[in-house]
Amino acid sequence: MTGLTMQLYSHWRSTTSYRVRIAFNLKGIAFDTVPIDLGKGEQRVPTYLEVNPGAGVPALRLGDGTILTQSMAILEWAEEVAPKPAILPQDPERRALVRAAAFGIATDVHPVNNLRVIGKLNRMGHSQEEGLAWMHDWMAIGFHAFARLIRDDTPFCFGESPSLADICLIPQLYNAHRWGVDLTAFARLTDIEARCLDLPAFADAHPENQADAA
Amino acid sequence: MTGLTMQLYSHWRSTTSYRVRIAFNLKGIAFDTVPIDLGKGEQRVPTYLEVNPGAGVPALRLGDGTILTQSMAILEWAEEVAPKPAILPQDPERRALVRAAAFGIATDVHPVNNLRVIGKLNRMGHSQEEGLAWMHDWMAIGFHAFARLIRDDTPFCFGESPSLADICLIPQLYNAHRWGVDLTAFARLTDIEARCLDLPAFADAHPENQADAA
Repeated sequence: MTGLTMQLYSHWRSTTSYRVRIAFNLKGIAFDTVPIDLGKGEQRVPTYLEVNPGAGVPALRLGDGTILTQSMAILEWAEEVAPKPAILPQDPERRALVRAAAFGIATDVHPVNNLRVIGKLNRMGHSQEEGLAWMHDWMAIGFHAFARLIRDDTPFCFGESPSLADICLIPQLYNAHRWGVDLTAFARLTDIEARCLDLPAFADAHPENQADAA
Repeated sequence: MTGLTMQLYSHWRSTTSYRVRIAFNLKGIAFDTVPIDLGKGEQRVPTYLEVNPGAGVPALRLGDGTILTQSMAILEWAEEVAPKPAILPQDPERRALVRAAAFGIATDVHPVNNLRVIGKLNRMGHSQEEGLAWMHDWMAIGFHAFARLIRDDTPFCFGESPSLADICLIPQLYNAHRWGVDLTAFARLTDIEARCLDLPAFADAHPENQADAA
């Protein structure tokens, strides 16, 4: 870690930006936020595409100018450069189980529901309601699988403290609330959510608490 | 690693199964294949949902009975239990750059194009051609971003040997060929592909070389 403060290109409502904010807060990694307004398409302007050719947030500019993209890569990097508190167990098998739950959100739920996909469905002639039904379906399927991949007897998904799985779950639940997903079948998940949001690292990372929140 | 051979639940054409086969071949990790026929819906039968509640392949049953899911989690696990040859650099920043390219495929391309999403589009009234256009669009966007995230002066994506990025790229290119994506704009990627497919680890993992190939 250099002495220069890093810059996190993010959007307050982006669930992938929210993941990174949580992890950085847990680990005490200092960063400045550079807001990218996804609603205005700022992720697609040429100067931002120089930062992230993937046209998304988050992206992280390190003190040496190196830019890291992809929230899951940034989270693994954070675990490597700031190992305490750990968001992954030490044992390889247990690490794989935590990562599998996290990737259940990061690959099976979030990508099919994000802004660019819903925008494409709209351009293909689907109504707002059809877009909403699409999101609800993938979230319900994903949350059912997630609930079966985590432990059922721990305060957080896999233990006594938040892990990569909790860091992916809580932003996705924020998204679920935003779009009115019925979460009554997922009491284990909303219990974990309440416990997480009681922690300053999660509360301070919450979308509504960001300076760029509209 | 236990002495018992592990079982990889996989499908010959599944690009995520293909990723794991490549990595295991590179690292000399022995495994038996348990074919799951996605075309027949075997991923959704109750006995398989006990293996993987996410209803997908691959899943890996370890010698002690533990089941690991999600290809990206299995690949990280493989790197941890069988570190040679490495598929990630040692330096955290460089690891993050390789992972970012890999996740560009694993989160931004594959999930929006997989069987269950295309099936849903069909059920929403879209034709085969519209499903195909959908896949082509996401692959072109993803390959453009990927090409800008890798190095342009190395035999493989990031160096002298295949990394996690190559392991994600080659199966996605297989999928691109399968669906007729125009790859003329991506000479760097198809050059890397040719170099990879010359290696036995990749060739042996190729879908057409699997026992369950139809």
